[in-house]
Amino acid sequence: MKILTVTGYKGGISKSTTAIHIATFFSDIGKTILVDSDPNRTALAWSSRGSLPFTVADERQAMKLISGNDFVVIDTPARPDSSDLKELAKGCDLLILPTIPDVVSLEPMLKTASDLGAANYRALLVIVPPSPSKEGAAIRSELIDNGIPVFKTMIRRAAGFQKAAFEGVPIRDVSSSKARVAWLDYLALGKEIMEVLGNG
Amino acid sequence: MKILTVTGYKGGISKSTTAIHIATFFSDIGKTILVDSDPNRTALAWSSRGSLPFTVADERQAMKLISGNDFVVIDTPARPDSSDLKELAKGCDLLILPTIPDVVSLEPMLKTASDLGAANYRALLVIVPPSPSKEGAAIRSELIDNGIPVFKTMIRRAAGFQKAAFEGVPIRDVSSSKARVAWLDYLALGKEIMEVLGNG
Repeated sequence: MKILTVTGYKGGISKSTTAIHIATFFSDIGKTILVDSDPNRTALAWSSRGSLPFTVADERQAMKLISGNDFVVIDTPARPDSSDLKELAKGCDLLILPTIPDVVSLEPMLKTASDLGAANYRALLVIVPPSPSKEGAAIRSELIDNGIPVFKTMIRRAAGFQKAAFEGVPIRDVSSSKARVAWLDYLALGKEIMEVLGNG
Repeated sequence: MKILTVTGYKGGISKSTTAIHIATFFSDIGKTILVDSDPNRTALAWSSRGSLPFTVADERQAMKLISGNDFVVIDTPARPDSSDLKELAKGCDLLILPTIPDVVSLEPMLKTASDLGAANYRALLVIVPPSPSKEGAAIRSELIDNGIPVFKTMIRRAAGFQKAAFEGVPIRDVSSSKARVAWLDYLALGKEIMEVLGNG
């Protein structure tokens, strides 16, 4: 069983969306469960509006439900403190930290990374403005220059995520060419996560 | 795997002590883990001061550690609201609600029980004044008259629990005749829990 934990140093960084789409990717490979530990219960609500290709469990039932799964994706509360982050990292195979490519987000991300030290984590650029904007690549370089491990894949901003949330499905089930492009980003991310897990 | 969750409608009801001693009982029967979800981390601190005959896991590492255990005892935060209680009950095989035998505790316990409805739970009288006091039996009757399922076993008040906490061991490892008597209460409780699980 592989455990992937998605957490955020602040709100509004598309944490639950990220967790849902990582779980969607892994549900094609093995039995997958998403544990919703975020008091907002965004993933549970998403699931209840439509249908997701994996089980979404309330954290209070997680112990009962995770047995027999190949992949466990945990959506945590936002804004953990630094001791929380370390404990979260110890509790999973990979800690994934979505981050928005703006200068305001850079400072807390650097602080978070310094708290985490050599822990098993990767930053993930999300809500990245599409080309020709270079914001994503610029912030990614900045993070790397500061010694932070960052996924090569960046998740581009796409209106389809709103629609997917509304319909209660993953973005790959939203019928628009832009939504398909957004899903390609998650496919690439999923492959990159598998590489990291393989080397771990 | 059997999951036993200990929760309380208020603080100071010996919730962590109860969880630790239930886990001690089950550690003689099968591989047992106690998941400490209480922000006070009482069970983790108890364990760190000495040695307990089972693993105590920080809740943030629980998903990684529970696999392969026969018994999972969950020590929850105190004061869950009524929706929490129902979700907690759904997430376990038996929800255990320690309660103190005083009139002040009766009202919140009755409220809690009405929130729980027909869920899989049992109230447990703890910190019961020893004979000739009849307080424990009186409150137990009161709860039963109100339709609340209550363990036959009552855990008597014993100074040995303080010593056990200080030494970081279960009370059965504290050398005094009174401590041995206190452990007998937990032995009886453990047997009663096994009966309930068997019928469940």
